[in-house]
Amino acid sequence: MNIEQFRKAGYQAIDRICDYYYALQDSKFPVLPDVEPGYLRPLLPSSAPESGEDFSQIAEDYQKLIVKGYTHWQHPSFLAYFPAGFSFEGILGDLYASSVSNPGFNWLSSPSCTELESIVLDWASKMLGLSGSFLNASGVGGGCFQNTASEAALVAIIAARTAYKAAHPDTKLEDMRIYTSTQTHSLGLKAGVILGLTVRALEVTREDNFSLRGDTLRSALEEDKKKGLHPFILIATIGTTSSGAVDNIAEIRTVVTDFPDIKIHVDAAWAGMALVCPEFREMCYLKDINAIADSFSTNFHKWGLTNFDACPLWVRDRKYLIDALDITPPFLRTAQGDAGTVIDYRNWHLGLGRRYRSLKLWFVLRGYGVEGFQKHIRKAVDLNKVFVELVSSSDMLSLCAPPSLALSVFRINPKPSTLNQATLPEDALNDLNKLFYGRISVRKDIFLTQTVLNGQFCIRLAIGSAFTQDVHIREAFEVITHEGKLTLEAWDRLLPRGP
Amino acid sequence: MNIEQFRKAGYQAIDRICDYYYALQDSKFPVLPDVEPGYLRPLLPSSAPESGEDFSQIAEDYQKLIVKGYTHWQHPSFLAYFPAGFSFEGILGDLYASSVSNPGFNWLSSPSCTELESIVLDWASKMLGLSGSFLNASGVGGGCFQNTASEAALVAIIAARTAYKAAHPDTKLEDMRIYTSTQTHSLGLKAGVILGLTVRALEVTREDNFSLRGDTLRSALEEDKKKGLHPFILIATIGTTSSGAVDNIAEIRTVVTDFPDIKIHVDAAWAGMALVCPEFREMCYLKDINAIADSFSTNFHKWGLTNFDACPLWVRDRKYLIDALDITPPFLRTAQGDAGTVIDYRNWHLGLGRRYRSLKLWFVLRGYGVEGFQKHIRKAVDLNKVFVELVSSSDMLSLCAPPSLALSVFRINPKPSTLNQATLPEDALNDLNKLFYGRISVRKDIFLTQTVLNGQFCIRLAIGSAFTQDVHIREAFEVITHEGKLTLEAWDRLLPRGP
Repeated sequence: MNIEQFRKAGYQAIDRICDYYYALQDSKFPVLPDVEPGYLRPLLPSSAPESGEDFSQIAEDYQKLIVKGYTHWQHPSFLAYFPAGFSFEGILGDLYASSVSNPGFNWLSSPSCTELESIVLDWASKMLGLSGSFLNASGVGGGCFQNTASEAALVAIIAARTAYKAAHPDTKLEDMRIYTSTQTHSLGLKAGVILGLTVRALEVTREDNFSLRGDTLRSALEEDKKKGLHPFILIATIGTTSSGAVDNIAEIRTVVTDFPDIKIHVDAAWAGMALVCPEFREMCYLKDINAIADSFSTNFHKWGLTNFDACPLWVRDRKYLIDALDITPPFLRTAQGDAGTVIDYRNWHLGLGRRYRSLKLWFVLRGYGVEGFQKHIRKAVDLNKVFVELVSSSDMLSLCAPPSLALSVFRINPKPSTLNQATLPEDALNDLNKLFYGRISVRKDIFLTQTVLNGQFCIRLAIGSAFTQDVHIREAFEVITHEGKLTLEAWDRLLPRGP
Repeated sequence: MNIEQFRKAGYQAIDRICDYYYALQDSKFPVLPDVEPGYLRPLLPSSAPESGEDFSQIAEDYQKLIVKGYTHWQHPSFLAYFPAGFSFEGILGDLYASSVSNPGFNWLSSPSCTELESIVLDWASKMLGLSGSFLNASGVGGGCFQNTASEAALVAIIAARTAYKAAHPDTKLEDMRIYTSTQTHSLGLKAGVILGLTVRALEVTREDNFSLRGDTLRSALEEDKKKGLHPFILIATIGTTSSGAVDNIAEIRTVVTDFPDIKIHVDAAWAGMALVCPEFREMCYLKDINAIADSFSTNFHKWGLTNFDACPLWVRDRKYLIDALDITPPFLRTAQGDAGTVIDYRNWHLGLGRRYRSLKLWFVLRGYGVEGFQKHIRKAVDLNKVFVELVSSSDMLSLCAPPSLALSVFRINPKPSTLNQATLPEDALNDLNKLFYGRISVRKDIFLTQTVLNGQFCIRLAIGSAFTQDVHIREAFEVITHEGKLTLEAWDRLLPRGP
């Protein structure tokens, strides 16, 4: 393809993206695709072609075969998982970045990539209210993009393990302990299996809204220390995946003053974006995060208007990462790196090459401004309030945990009058709700996901697509209510009749 | 930004990318930017704006402030590191992929993303001549994208460690050993520090062209086994970074029949792409790779025409990865995953969310066809032959290792007649060549990188940009010769005069 062919294909791509978003904002297609596992393989040849093909044919096949298999994360009725960040500014940032394809692993390999990342993550850090200690401009702390929140947590754990081993060289890996809560994202357990280290998941209770409390942490640390084990890091969560729970960082702050060797990583993958609004900072323990977090991570590619991926990790002391991750063979040495006048971000993460993500975040931050971000966050929180009101007014549904920002977790919990028996035992309620979710999950016009909260099967509704409006939440509630009624009718038929 | 504003900004972006490539192919600007460390910070505000800005202003600032700080990896005179993959098809793939921003961690989260990846990596696997065991269609083995070759190797090591620990549960992590050669990319050592495991880098010699030999491996394994240590994986390299050395997989194949517990990961990050040409398969030990490799990785984002990043990892047995990396909390369960009818790629790598990269590789494979890939590889190899001939004709320069595909490593090694002394000792030669590289590296019109081969300081010249032509290699040689002469003159002035 030559430059003029690219211009033509590029215009066409832009036009088709516009067509797609016009159709999407008008809900002209459902959120979930109507394809079965394995649909694509019979539609494509089994090998690459011998000779190159004309791009117009490739673009046609894309429209015809690939688009039909998408789950539409930007669809107004996408209420599953957490939202995926999106903005037109983000696409443009990705486009310009892709056009200069480079793996900016050190300053010299593309100075503006490193410099822009350093500046833009300072902008982001300030916008979220993080302490000045986390700024790249501080020369001590700083932030850089990781691939995902999982890898950000992994990097934090590796840094903490390295720091601990440096202070206690005889420690066996087998005796080292990572702490999470039972509600921590699977990134905690996954980091454990990746590193071959043991993770202790601390219990949290429904009464505490699934938040990790200081006393629970203190007991565990004391117990493990007595056993001769070596606690070295806690992964605290701001906004868990199941219910949006927020670990009590204020209490944790008090506890860890007695355990100076333990590092704190704060995983705010989803809810961290709410820190852009002053009114949510207290519930997210921002002050305590700023006081004790060794590292903090949030995903602009979730609730932050930025196309996947864009996950910064900030640290209070960049040496924390570099001491653990700097390997510099001769072929990677540069005059600027040797002189120490630049940041070589490859020493801050797992891989060597790194995507050029700062450009899209720069575009997004400038395009929306702080006010635009605040508006985006508040809109989703307000839409969740609408949903919560609707659930409260229902005699069939109830929340399984307090709503958290733009996330609600609910289930069918019918009043006895709606069933021909007194009350349902917990096991039966779970079966009933699995049936309920089974009905919802085969629909293509709405997408919600399931979870389990301390044994209770429930359904999550997470708001955040830029295209979701009040009407879509009300429609979703109607669908949920409709399927709930049908579930109860089916259930009723399954039950033995009363006298 | 609304849809029509996006259309306008999108067209503008396409046009500007066209302008950029017209200028680049005519070498209208140098390969390296003329900026100093810290150039950008004073040019940008210290915080994100409060209100959103108009995109036309943002796009202007991009052109004015950011482009000037790029190292131009696609420039015809970019001869540093290894090339970064690029094609217009690749940009278009990134653009369409970015437009549906999604983190396709499981099948349901976007069926076509998973299915296309599964199919396209089969196309790629066949194109490179890998064994049918590595095909996703086999239902047993398969391939998926990792972030970089470093992370592919890391994943392979984690899988091998997990398999070894499953077979030998009492093994202490402290006693486990990873094997590499001293020429293995820093990804080996980095994986060691990440995982807290010891890496033993085996010596290779100049006489063996820096290739790992079977006897060296056998002695090390026997020695370590005698010490009670646990060898569990070898990272073998096809095309090392310093000199393009190829480990002797045929000999390694014989050795490992006696050590059935040791897994083999083949890192062919750069040179693997040469497997597309039948004539390079024997020198890359393809037959032996197909016989013994547990995993194999190469970067389409290096020599493979695909914009960063696109690094597949293939395994002979997908359980190898899944056993090590599958963590499935309730909120990630799906009907299709539970039924086992789909691949959930999140269980094949470190993170959870994953970029949608199959689209661009599909575009590139179709746009170029197998013949287009072969032409691209052969062109770079042929250009390297031109460079090698020029070096051979020089009485100042000599190669430090045999040329490997599209990579040459050279240094000044002057004939005694060109200096006022008999011969130079090795230390002085190194000093001379550092001076030489110092001169080359301050130029902006050509970009080469340094390395050290068994103590010998040398300069690498790696060819692979789609825009590099014969004339650019000849120009590069002229620049090198010019700087070499000036280096020798300066050196001559520094030396004590002869009698």
